[in-house]
Amino acid sequence: MIGVVVNKSLILRSSPEFDFYDSSSFSGKLGFLLKMPSASFNSLPGGPQVRSSFSAPIQAMEGSRTTSSFVNDKVDSFPTDFHQSCCNSDDNFTGNDGKDTLKTSTVGNSTNILWHKCSVEKSDRQELLQQKGCVIWITGLSGSGKSTLACALCRGLHARGKLTYILDGDNVRHGLNRDLSFKAEDRAENIRRIGEVAKLFADAGVICIASLISPYRKDRDACRALLPEGAFIEVFMDVPLQVCEARDPKGLYKLARAGKIKGFTGIDDPYEPPLKSEIVLQQEVGLCDSAEDLAEIVITYLDEKGYLEP
Amino acid sequence: MIGVVVNKSLILRSSPEFDFYDSSSFSGKLGFLLKMPSASFNSLPGGPQVRSSFSAPIQAMEGSRTTSSFVNDKVDSFPTDFHQSCCNSDDNFTGNDGKDTLKTSTVGNSTNILWHKCSVEKSDRQELLQQKGCVIWITGLSGSGKSTLACALCRGLHARGKLTYILDGDNVRHGLNRDLSFKAEDRAENIRRIGEVAKLFADAGVICIASLISPYRKDRDACRALLPEGAFIEVFMDVPLQVCEARDPKGLYKLARAGKIKGFTGIDDPYEPPLKSEIVLQQEVGLCDSAEDLAEIVITYLDEKGYLEP
Repeated sequence: MIGVVVNKSLILRSSPEFDFYDSSSFSGKLGFLLKMPSASFNSLPGGPQVRSSFSAPIQAMEGSRTTSSFVNDKVDSFPTDFHQSCCNSDDNFTGNDGKDTLKTSTVGNSTNILWHKCSVEKSDRQELLQQKGCVIWITGLSGSGKSTLACALCRGLHARGKLTYILDGDNVRHGLNRDLSFKAEDRAENIRRIGEVAKLFADAGVICIASLISPYRKDRDACRALLPEGAFIEVFMDVPLQVCEARDPKGLYKLARAGKIKGFTGIDDPYEPPLKSEIVLQQEVGLCDSAEDLAEIVITYLDEKGYLEP
Repeated sequence: MIGVVVNKSLILRSSPEFDFYDSSSFSGKLGFLLKMPSASFNSLPGGPQVRSSFSAPIQAMEGSRTTSSFVNDKVDSFPTDFHQSCCNSDDNFTGNDGKDTLKTSTVGNSTNILWHKCSVEKSDRQELLQQKGCVIWITGLSGSGKSTLACALCRGLHARGKLTYILDGDNVRHGLNRDLSFKAEDRAENIRRIGEVAKLFADAGVICIASLISPYRKDRDACRALLPEGAFIEVFMDVPLQVCEARDPKGLYKLARAGKIKGFTGIDDPYEPPLKSEIVLQQEVGLCDSAEDLAEIVITYLDEKGYLEP
């Protein structure tokens, strides 16, 4: 079979003129197969020379180009019509004639970086998912029921065929933010990173549920500022400290009261309640909520704002 | 209407015994509405007392509980049957009797954190999306066509109804990794974070396409180690330096040769080619590829490995 490029679409043709060197190990649907050693080359500092260690020859036709691909240590090589212009048909890259060189920029500490646009856009993903990407940011004291609401929301939305993903403060500290402690600047960085990741998920079309104490208003507002207008939905779990402390599901309030945890939100570190959150879920002393009830309020909000359709 | 908790599901009943205080501003489908000022309370260090600034009364029945929620500065308050057990019906949280206190752990610099499980699992999301979450990790020199392949893959998979998301080295440096430079430790951290985020996307069920030079083998292998067996698909853009430099789409090789960029991969910083990548896409000097051809090879691989079904 030969892969031929016609108007940027791949057409497969059976090709009697190419032999399969080892048809028994042919694993792909495409191509003409060569057994080759693993690729390796060493780029030496200061020089453009690259030593290719491919020992088997790559067959190429005059006037054609050769694309070689290894899949699981095998190689598929399929000659195709050669169009010099294909090098310049990329979304992002143009030739090196100087005129078309892409503009790079500096962002923060990153120099010479370029924003790559792709022809599959957020709107396409939203159409596929039949929903709008957004961030539901659940904030409140430890023990206020953030994670529980997040899970109930996840269940309720999944039951409606919607794709959600939870970014839980604790969970993300097991991976992305494992290098961060609970000191002030690390808490801010924890929230910044979760905000940035939540933004990526929303851009992917996902209803991203971020569930974390996020005690400082300016950190939350910085995350809000990353998202398009309306796509950051702040949910304030307005539960009195005494209720949270009475629950103390992780035993952390007890430790904080005993002085074994320093800088614990609500005990010796402040919680700044949102001033203009989209949704406030309040709970009185001595009373308690069903997570499903609360989730339903948020889902109703999403529905009314059009987030449950593309 | 009253929300009543019966077996953890919410049943709505019309309720003549509750008045709407301001039906004109009623915005939710649930509840009994009170106009209230914005919530605010200050948790004072050292004490459990929380001052609630809600000035309007919350109505509660004897033997019932009150859930109050504000949506866009309005409040929905709906009394429901009170079950003390509802406080302990959470997925994650149990009472504070000491016996059921959840175990927390220390990960990296994060102390007292707890992994929250949720009843909507990766397999559920995969069923919804009709695909398997995975990471396609495209590595290679600057100018080797990583971003172009990523976009072509994105288009090809979207055309098949699959949800993809691209994490591009440059793009992520505009947000999550804007605090990182190109010095060695920051490059490693850049890759670590992208690996962790890619893992989250794969867990969300998304086919995540990470496109970045990622020159060091150990950094790439560390990302591979984060994913379940088979779910990290390394694609090596095996394009000779001289081809990449001739393209020089961003004009960076020129700058690196002129000594204006230090530590540029392939010039004065090494690129360590993968030894066992799942797919090697090789390109010869003087020849060039169609991104669609290359994408098709990767899509065929995904198809054969079962990633395009749940």
